[in-house]
Amino acid sequence: MAARSISQAVIKRLPRYMRFLSEIQAEGIDRISSKELSERMHVTASQIRQDLNQFGGFGQQGYGYNVSKLIVEIGKILGLDKPHNLIVVGAGNLGRALAGYSNFESRGLYIRALFDAAPENTVKDVRGLPVYGMDALPGYLATHNIDIAVLTIPKDNVRAVAYRLYELGIRGFWNFAHIDLALPEDAVAQNVHLSESLMQLTYYMKH
Amino acid sequence: MAARSISQAVIKRLPRYMRFLSEIQAEGIDRISSKELSERMHVTASQIRQDLNQFGGFGQQGYGYNVSKLIVEIGKILGLDKPHNLIVVGAGNLGRALAGYSNFESRGLYIRALFDAAPENTVKDVRGLPVYGMDALPGYLATHNIDIAVLTIPKDNVRAVAYRLYELGIRGFWNFAHIDLALPEDAVAQNVHLSESLMQLTYYMKH
Repeated sequence: MAARSISQAVIKRLPRYMRFLSEIQAEGIDRISSKELSERMHVTASQIRQDLNQFGGFGQQGYGYNVSKLIVEIGKILGLDKPHNLIVVGAGNLGRALAGYSNFESRGLYIRALFDAAPENTVKDVRGLPVYGMDALPGYLATHNIDIAVLTIPKDNVRAVAYRLYELGIRGFWNFAHIDLALPEDAVAQNVHLSESLMQLTYYMKH
Repeated sequence: MAARSISQAVIKRLPRYMRFLSEIQAEGIDRISSKELSERMHVTASQIRQDLNQFGGFGQQGYGYNVSKLIVEIGKILGLDKPHNLIVVGAGNLGRALAGYSNFESRGLYIRALFDAAPENTVKDVRGLPVYGMDALPGYLATHNIDIAVLTIPKDNVRAVAYRLYELGIRGFWNFAHIDLALPEDAVAQNVHLSESLMQLTYYMKH
């Protein structure tokens, strides 16, 4: 599968295909035409055929797409064919909100623990997950197979904390601090800038 | 200004320009070349010139861009030239996290109150903002000039709540429930799917 040649625009759309296909699967449907899928997703059928053909094309003329096969194949491309273990660093409201999403687990994304500079301040338990102090990071990471850190800490601390986590072996960073985190070449950071999405909303409200 | 002809890709990049330009302004710099801006933003200088020329081009050959003028102009395009008043509907961890972001205010985006089905459960105050029950919505919206609702409620309730808010006059929706919210034509919804961003991370970790 020529996954390397998939365009960035398609990569951004693949999780959306996952979401709709999973909903369709949950309804007990195991075969869907590009036309039906396009109506649900509000994109054109030709866009769907073009996207899904980029990684081999699982549709058959007159048959449509095999939903469960497509979910498995898109999952492979997205790196969801093996489980990922995550920690949340920063147990404030946002960190606790993310740790509370049990639906990540249906994708093989398991949040295992939270870390915070002041773990004693966490008022309520999140799904029974442990909350540790930052000092516990080296010991925890040495004994647990964690590959992704979710960073929900203030902007001023995030570079130092990310670098420390990198030194402790973490290579995947899901960063919510309002900076673009730059890391060594063998690490990957996905930066989420929530305010940018809000500004897109105000744009569309004006125009 | 031919704002209507700006491509969607550029619109998505404009908030990022805002962020970097604001940082530059905070450093006391009021003039920047496309080359310097490109080094900070890790995009090519020609991309920057092309983007900023789409809405008139504020650069002068050999002078560079006037930072504060550019911030004002991009703000106008993004609909930030007038203040927006927001309510957060759903005072759980995510709603409280968003209500806690005081930096939205520097863009003229003011969160005024939170609403929740069980307001008595909110354990701590968020920046002194009031938390009301859902029954208080009609009265509150009739007496406050709110134009955006931030929806941080469970997926199953979000369509009904959004429709109710629409009937009460809200036309901007920032939706965090994991569905694509569809609304009447005169309303705008920006759907944030956090798990899609996480799946982009796992993609890049694999490839």
